[in-house]
Amino acid sequence: MDIQEKNTRVGFHSIESILENNPEQIKKVLLPANRNDKRLTQLKLLLDETGISYESSNKLKQEPKAILINSPELNLKDLKEFINNFKGSPLILILDNVIDPRNLGACVRSAAVTEVDAVIINKHQCAPINAIAHKVAAGGFEYTKIFNVTNLVNCFKFLTQSNIIINGLSEHASESYTSYDFKQPSALVMGSEEHGVRKKTLENCDNIINLSTNKLFKSLNVSVATGIILSEAARQRNRGLT
Amino acid sequence: MDIQEKNTRVGFHSIESILENNPEQIKKVLLPANRNDKRLTQLKLLLDETGISYESSNKLKQEPKAILINSPELNLKDLKEFINNFKGSPLILILDNVIDPRNLGACVRSAAVTEVDAVIINKHQCAPINAIAHKVAAGGFEYTKIFNVTNLVNCFKFLTQSNIIINGLSEHASESYTSYDFKQPSALVMGSEEHGVRKKTLENCDNIINLSTNKLFKSLNVSVATGIILSEAARQRNRGLT
Repeated sequence: MDIQEKNTRVGFHSIESILENNPEQIKKVLLPANRNDKRLTQLKLLLDETGISYESSNKLKQEPKAILINSPELNLKDLKEFINNFKGSPLILILDNVIDPRNLGACVRSAAVTEVDAVIINKHQCAPINAIAHKVAAGGFEYTKIFNVTNLVNCFKFLTQSNIIINGLSEHASESYTSYDFKQPSALVMGSEEHGVRKKTLENCDNIINLSTNKLFKSLNVSVATGIILSEAARQRNRGLT
Repeated sequence: MDIQEKNTRVGFHSIESILENNPEQIKKVLLPANRNDKRLTQLKLLLDETGISYESSNKLKQEPKAILINSPELNLKDLKEFINNFKGSPLILILDNVIDPRNLGACVRSAAVTEVDAVIINKHQCAPINAIAHKVAAGGFEYTKIFNVTNLVNCFKFLTQSNIIINGLSEHASESYTSYDFKQPSALVMGSEEHGVRKKTLENCDNIINLSTNKLFKSLNVSVATGIILSEAARQRNRGLT
C-alpha cells in the first residue's frame, strides 16, 4: 500500500467517526460532486462545525474521501511505553494471524466500541491494514491505540512481565469465556479464520478459554467471535456495552 | 443465481459442517485433484465414514465443492406450520435488509452456533443467498431452518398472533439487550449495515433494545452485533454458548 492509500479513508461511517473523535487527524475531505442528499448535507455541517476544509471532486462517485495527516506507526517500543504509563487494568486485543482485511477491520471496530485499551497486530502474519480494512473498521483504527509488532514472543514476554494475563481461544479449553474475570489486566489473542490460534502461540498463553459449547456447529466467524468475547469483557468492566 | 450455484457449496468448513450435521443433503463431493495434504485426507475420511461419493476434479484449485440435492425454499406458509407445531419457547432471527452477502452469511453462521430455532429473511430486501453467503456461513444455511418471506408486515402479524415478542435494535432505545429476558418466545430483527432497522419496521416491533452504550464510537458491524445479541440470548437459554 502506498503512502497515499495509507492516509486515505473512504466512506461516511469512517469519516464521521474520525470527525467526531479525532478531527485533528484529518487534513481535508473530498466530497462526491454529483451527490447532493441529506447524508452529504449532514457531513458538510459536521465539517463546518469542526472547521475542516472540504472540496468537491468529480472523481468520487458515491462516497466521500478524507486525507489524513501522516501519523507514525506504533511498534513494540511504543507499546512498552504505553503499558508502563498505563493507569488501571488494561484490556488488550492481540490479532495473531487474521488474514482477511474485512475481519481485521471488523475486529478493530469491535475493539473501539468495547473500549479496548490497545490492539496489537502481529504485522507479518495478519492482513495488511488496507483500504478495505479501514472501510470495515469505520474509524476504529483512528479511535483505538494500534501497535504493530513483528515478534509476538517478545511481545508476550513483555506483557507477562507487566502482569497482564494472556488468554488464547481454543475449542478444546474447558473454561468458558463467561467465567473468566476480565476485570484483571488481560490480553485476548485471536487467531486465523481457518485454524484459530496457532498451537505454538497457545502454548505461550497463560490461560485458554473457549467460546462455543455447541458440539455440532461450533465455528464462528473470527470477527464475530472477537466481538462476542469483547462484549463479555466490556459487560464485566461496565464499558461501551452494557 | 442459477440452480447449479444454488445447490453448490465450496470450502472445507462448509462441507465438513454439512457432512457432520446434514449428510443426507449432499449428492456428491468434488475434490481438488492437485491437492494431497492432511486437510484433504481428513475430508476423504469423513466422506468414507458417511458413505458419500466423491471424485477428483482438475477444475478445482484449492477448495472442495459439494453438490447438494435440490431442497425447496421455505416460505411464510412453512414458517406458520413450523411455529404452530413448535414445542417450547422459540428464538427467531429476522434479517430485514442486510445487503452484504458476507454479513448475511455471518449472521446465519452465528444463528447456527447459538441454536436459533429459525431465521427469517426478508427476501427482496436482503442480499441474495449466493456462493459468498454460503461460504461465510460455513454450513449455517443447512444447519438452521431458513424461511424466506416477501411481506414482513404479514410475517410480524403472524408472530404477534403466536405470542412471539418482536425485538428491534435501535441506538435510541433505553433498554439494554442484556436486561431483556430472551427465555420468552422472542424474535430479534436486524437491519441494514448503513441505517440499522428501518423506522417503519421498528414501529411494528413490540420492544426496542439497544446494544452499545459507548456514546463516542457506537456502530458495530451488523454481523458482529447479531452475534453479540444472540450470544446473550444463548447464555440466558443455556444453549450453544455458555
